[in-house]
Amino acid sequence: MSILCVGSVALDSVETPFGKAERVPGGSAVFFTAAASLLNPVRIVGVIGDDYPTDALDFLTERGVDLTGIERSPGESFFWAGRYEYDLNVRETLETRLGVFAEFRPRIPESFRSSRIVFLGNIDPVLQHDVLDQVESPELVACDTMNYWIEGRRKELLSLLERVDVLIVNDSELRELANEPNLLRAARWVQERGPGLVVAKKGEHGAILFGREWRFFAPGYPLEELRDPTGAGDAFAGGFLGSLAGAGAAGPEELRRAVVYGSAMGSYAVEDFSVDRFRRLTSDEVERRVVEFREMTAFDVRIGTGEHA
Amino acid sequence: MSILCVGSVALDSVETPFGKAERVPGGSAVFFTAAASLLNPVRIVGVIGDDYPTDALDFLTERGVDLTGIERSPGESFFWAGRYEYDLNVRETLETRLGVFAEFRPRIPESFRSSRIVFLGNIDPVLQHDVLDQVESPELVACDTMNYWIEGRRKELLSLLERVDVLIVNDSELRELANEPNLLRAARWVQERGPGLVVAKKGEHGAILFGREWRFFAPGYPLEELRDPTGAGDAFAGGFLGSLAGAGAAGPEELRRAVVYGSAMGSYAVEDFSVDRFRRLTSDEVERRVVEFREMTAFDVRIGTGEHA
Repeated sequence: MSILCVGSVALDSVETPFGKAERVPGGSAVFFTAAASLLNPVRIVGVIGDDYPTDALDFLTERGVDLTGIERSPGESFFWAGRYEYDLNVRETLETRLGVFAEFRPRIPESFRSSRIVFLGNIDPVLQHDVLDQVESPELVACDTMNYWIEGRRKELLSLLERVDVLIVNDSELRELANEPNLLRAARWVQERGPGLVVAKKGEHGAILFGREWRFFAPGYPLEELRDPTGAGDAFAGGFLGSLAGAGAAGPEELRRAVVYGSAMGSYAVEDFSVDRFRRLTSDEVERRVVEFREMTAFDVRIGTGEHA
Repeated sequence: MSILCVGSVALDSVETPFGKAERVPGGSAVFFTAAASLLNPVRIVGVIGDDYPTDALDFLTERGVDLTGIERSPGESFFWAGRYEYDLNVRETLETRLGVFAEFRPRIPESFRSSRIVFLGNIDPVLQHDVLDQVESPELVACDTMNYWIEGRRKELLSLLERVDVLIVNDSELRELANEPNLLRAARWVQERGPGLVVAKKGEHGAILFGREWRFFAPGYPLEELRDPTGAGDAFAGGFLGSLAGAGAAGPEELRRAVVYGSAMGSYAVEDFSVDRFRRLTSDEVERRVVEFREMTAFDVRIGTGEHA
């Protein structure tokens, strides 16, 4: 089942207590695709400047990613520089230069328009609308957003929600969007505005998928060595939608498993800078980690032993 | 399998955005026992002053708790007053008066000394040692502690660990004890000093049990209505050990289930002030919530479909 991903294609300079990387591939579309392409073919739409290293995304082509939707414009690529504290939850943005991304208007190639699954990475909700205007009737539309758009493009974001099946955001973003500190109620608030499914990503604390009548929880994978958390949320989305696409269905069983694939991919993202972990990641490793998630969470319910008071 | 619990028996005055309660039963031993006694008989050792309301703990007697180890001393009961912010993770201590607790020297009644499971609530590690000196060879010793003892009684705490099978602490306490921000490594640090099992409680984010060769994760139960988080960690410990005692074994399967019972009890603790939720809680409700945990975390691993790239 084909996946279309639209988002940022960036160069990142990142510094963490465990090392640094200069002008390496980043951006929501890149992290998403690096993860999803291990599970299912992906078509990617984005923009790069003429400074983007030509071979930086070759590993995606080798995995069957269709990069024909990435246009190269004269100017500088989207650039982000940031530094993480020893507590990797704390990050400081040192610099953001939009470059060619400032004028980005997604043009969905004809051959991409029949994609069955659409992921709208974290970009201006106006552009997310634009993308949906250009695709034929997809079976599943998922989108991400952030506080910047929640605050500055609220109206557009709310009307976008009516066209979205799955909202995938951080727990803090979900709370801010709904203006409601309780996560359960915040999810319901969103569901009343369109998406039947809401995923709250909680970083090292895992992720919760809220259906209308049920919910599913996956823990964060306990990592001993972390290097760079950048892109983990997008890798989560890639694992989530890649798993659904591979399954060819989005019933509760497939959705639950998809959350685990998302969590697995998010954990791999953190193991190295940029998308470096995905360059050498194998499907077998992903499957093994999914099995580990099961071992980490499965238990037997023992009912009616009569031993209890 | 008999459980002995030694800890504080307090009166708490608590204020949260959802209400307040004045001089109500609290303390680690009370919350532990309120939860554990729904699963297994408990013997409790502690001290109260002559201001402690005589009927405050009657509901425990009705559940088969043996209160003969609670001595009444002349003076004031341990009193704690605190206030929680709208974010219930943020709490301010308004007042602590140790009262009779300042001179507390646990005396384990003869009939309690053969208890098979011992829970050392969060008290001075010197007293926790005292308790272990008075009991015969228990099968399982679990203990809690806090930053105050980690900082002020480090030597005694470390020697206590050599006598303990399960350390049950908050994740921040585990990190502080091991002086190691990574939870996996912090758990291993503790395991090298005695306890083969380490439980890191993460509040609303759930709990992780670290065995030497495996680990188990339970999420926090997503609550829509929270009233007072006081005592949730002790209720967790009560559910955990109550479940193990009821099972009469502490293999991996029983331990995994015990973490879920702990999480269930912790979630009930938060639903009302003091131990009020436990006064009306039934075994059936506990079992139902455990089943809900399973529904919230179970998924099927699908291996080798050959669909993946």
